[in-house]
Amino acid sequence: MPVAAMYPGTFDPITLGHEDLVRRSSALFDRVVVAIASDTGSKTPLFSVEERLEMARTALSDIDNVEVRRYAGLTVDFARDNGLRVILRGLRAVSDFEYEFQLATMNRHLVDDVETLFLTPDERYNFLSSTLVREVAQLGGDISGFVSPDVNAALKERLGNS
Amino acid sequence: MPVAAMYPGTFDPITLGHEDLVRRSSALFDRVVVAIASDTGSKTPLFSVEERLEMARTALSDIDNVEVRRYAGLTVDFARDNGLRVILRGLRAVSDFEYEFQLATMNRHLVDDVETLFLTPDERYNFLSSTLVREVAQLGGDISGFVSPDVNAALKERLGNS
Amino acid sequence: MPVAAMYPGTFDPITLGHEDLVRRSSALFDRVVVAIASDTGSKTPLFSVEERLEMARTALSDIDNVEVRRYAGLTVDFARDNGLRVILRGLRAVSDFEYEFQLATMNRHLVDDVETLFLTPDERYNFLSSTLVREVAQLGGDISGFVSPDVNAALKERLGNS
Amino acid sequence: MPVAAMYPGTFDPITLGHEDLVRRSSALFDRVVVAIASDTGSKTPLFSVEERLEMARTALSDIDNVEVRRYAGLTVDFARDNGLRVILRGLRAVSDFEYEFQLATMNRHLVDDVETLFLTPDERYNFLSSTLVREVAQLGGDISGFVSPDVNAALKERLGNS
Amino acid sequence: MPVAAMYPGTFDPITLGHEDLVRRSSALFDRVVVAIASDTGSKTPLFSVEERLEMARTALSDIDNVEVRRYAGLTVDFARDNGLRVILRGLRAVSDFEYEFQLATMNRHLVDDVETLFLTPDERYNFLSSTLVREVAQLGGDISGFVSPDVNAALKERLGNS
Amino acid sequence: MPVAAMYPGTFDPITLGHEDLVRRSSALFDRVVVAIASDTGSKTPLFSVEERLEMARTALSDIDNVEVRRYAGLTVDFARDNGLRVILRGLRAVSDFEYEFQLATMNRHLVDDVETLFLTPDERYNFLSSTLVREVAQLGGDISGFVSPDVNAALKERLGNS
Repeated sequence: MPVAAMYPGTFDPITLGHEDLVRRSSALFDRVVVAIASDTGSKTPLFSVEERLEMARTALSDIDNVEVRRYAGLTVDFARDNGLRVILRGLRAVSDFEYEFQLATMNRHLVDDVETLFLTPDERYNFLSSTLVREVAQLGGDISGFVSPDVNAALKERLGNS
Repeated sequence: MPVAAMYPGTFDPITLGHEDLVRRSSALFDRVVVAIASDTGSKTPLFSVEERLEMARTALSDIDNVEVRRYAGLTVDFARDNGLRVILRGLRAVSDFEYEFQLATMNRHLVDDVETLFLTPDERYNFLSSTLVREVAQLGGDISGFVSPDVNAALKERLGNS
Repeated sequence: MPVAAMYPGTFDPITLGHEDLVRRSSALFDRVVVAIASDTGSKTPLFSVEERLEMARTALSDIDNVEVRRYAGLTVDFARDNGLRVILRGLRAVSDFEYEFQLATMNRHLVDDVETLFLTPDERYNFLSSTLVREVAQLGGDISGFVSPDVNAALKERLGNS
Repeated sequence: MPVAAMYPGTFDPITLGHEDLVRRSSALFDRVVVAIASDTGSKTPLFSVEERLEMARTALSDIDNVEVRRYAGLTVDFARDNGLRVILRGLRAVSDFEYEFQLATMNRHLVDDVETLFLTPDERYNFLSSTLVREVAQLGGDISGFVSPDVNAALKERLGNS
Repeated sequence: MPVAAMYPGTFDPITLGHEDLVRRSSALFDRVVVAIASDTGSKTPLFSVEERLEMARTALSDIDNVEVRRYAGLTVDFARDNGLRVILRGLRAVSDFEYEFQLATMNRHLVDDVETLFLTPDERYNFLSSTLVREVAQLGGDISGFVSPDVNAALKERLGNS
Repeated sequence: MPVAAMYPGTFDPITLGHEDLVRRSSALFDRVVVAIASDTGSKTPLFSVEERLEMARTALSDIDNVEVRRYAGLTVDFARDNGLRVILRGLRAVSDFEYEFQLATMNRHLVDDVETLFLTPDERYNFLSSTLVREVAQLGGDISGFVSPDVNAALKERLGNS
């Protein structure tokens, strides 16, 4: 029963928490597609979608059954169109949970046979988010413990405090 | 990549919400073991473990790759000893989430290579729990919309309001 | 459009938070029935249902359109059988909310035309619960600010620290 | 005891969840005023207040004791000035609850004799919000199951994917 | 063991809830530094950092061991550089709690020997936030019960409804 | 300004999470009294209060300004009677938060000048609780990573699986 999974997000940038979740999932599914949204609504991302793709590809290059792709439009449409039967989402906090729950229910209404599965990150990464990492980096904090070396270098260069 | 999953619980009794979750999971994993705990700590279950096993087997008999078994001891020990690499849990509410999160983290510490995955039930079953079903049945309410006909009959007989 | 409401609970004992909620509701509905459950499941109440009725009647005797009654069985059955179209519940905290939400949904399934409405207590009473009041009284604390004088006297007598 | 209620919001656009809540409330109060805020703070609505009024009026035209009006300024001021003694709010999730609780307490401080009452929507609409409906529509998803036909048509036209 | 504490925030403007928390803390620590962030990220504050400093200084002038200062950069860097071993934060609601928890964990990673301590405000101020105060004032509501007289006057002047 | 703090609890048994919290606090207050409740309400503890005292004393013996004591009655009464101006509590999860908030507010009503301060444990211990440790030990799991060696030995002996 080969099952492929989609791990959608903005990944602005990919953190060690994301990497941990991809590694865990890649052991459970035949294929994991890390799907980076080019549409970010009203929020302007710090990195372009091309930069986000490249950072994710570099960070995950050692895992065989993982592929990094960009997408636009509805997450469930991408899943269905690419034969991905599972949407993976990380759960850290109660507020995550509520939004994710609302989204998973909506997605089930839109496309019936794609299932959302949730994982909890390693507790070492439980407080991490791309938003918090960007904020700390913007204020000059050391984020080397939260992202891979390439991402750290990219953040320093972008924020001009290399 | 054949992956087998464990869906542990007390199932006192199995509800339509449980059944929904098993059906969804059976489409994603090679095998799903519904594992009924004989240890229920300080709580005395309404049905014996044998009765709970039989009700679950009857309710799920039409799904090929599902097996109903009893277990004692730690959930993660059963998973590891039986080659089940995934523990499945339903998430309905925030309070579920917190307890489940604590448990998933503890389980990961105890056995590193068993992963906990969470599903949300169909929104029609989101308010359902075995506890609530028992309470309503004990007060004489009609629970035929929440459990399968066999379970409904068993509850009526047990509570003497058949 | 005369609408009568039911305010169900254990009221073991009635607190100033309950009184506040009854007073507010009595201004909005033609009649408010404070309905005290004689069934308390596995929990043994501190006061008998007769004592709880009397304390509530004394505390609420100055409000014209309020009636205190006992009931057994399902809350929604009592509401429907007595022409009470609204069930009132107080909401203090998130954990209240989740349980109440589950209950309200179940009740709507059981009896379709009884609606559950939630109120928030005055913030002075937001931390109050009968359980907490009993615990503080049992440990010898002064609870005169949280219950009416009659209830305070009854608690002191029952707990032998008058 | 004729009591009139206010159901305030942005309604950008009105969803089947809103309609469900208005229908339920109209059976409990003599009059329900659906009050559409023209002030939306820093958020630019997708539809003008006139469009939102018209969509709501069309969707609710079959209910006798419901009136749709626009308002500016404080919600409690509108309630008090129009003799509306109840503010109705829908509760879906914990995060709703906290914000609503804060708001209800503030409103009680501002105008003492207007009471906030909360309802939970039918579980079929529990995951719905105007924001989510707009997002799905903007990404080309089918939202015909979540809004009335007129609103669906208006959304398609506005977003240019009719 | 003289311990100094930092109470960081935007204070746009300082409310009676903030004042209550500073008063309580000043009785427990040798020195409390109210630290007003000049960096407010993407949010434009209503008052300039100089105005926020002056309002806070006026409101807190009667407490001896309290000092009001501005800061930029990471909160933990300011704490460490000024020998402040405690960061104080108010907790009102669950959503506060989650964000604060994430922040406290991140801060502990960044600077190991600065501890975050949380207080709950007096229940009279539990619903208060600078954001809610600004919103009510902008809509013409009376906020004199939520801020000190000077802040009230400043808000009226700024919003042109004096 | 010498300030002494009380860290109350059941400590059945003391975990590494508790130890972490005491160590952090002992650096911030002149004296920390770990106060073990002999009253455990309706719950029968696994260890007697004498055993719990001895385990805590052994685990904390290397910290100079920490004292382990038993107490009965209200927590705030013990604090006031012993000149302890701070009650320390650990916060792990949202459900902790709500109960603790309710308790802190009640305690402030009972004794005005004792302040409750909350700490978050190191994220390595965030999922730990005495209850979970007991449950895992009772089911034969290895809890050596969650408690000190003496407590581990005591648990094994008590549960007969040494």
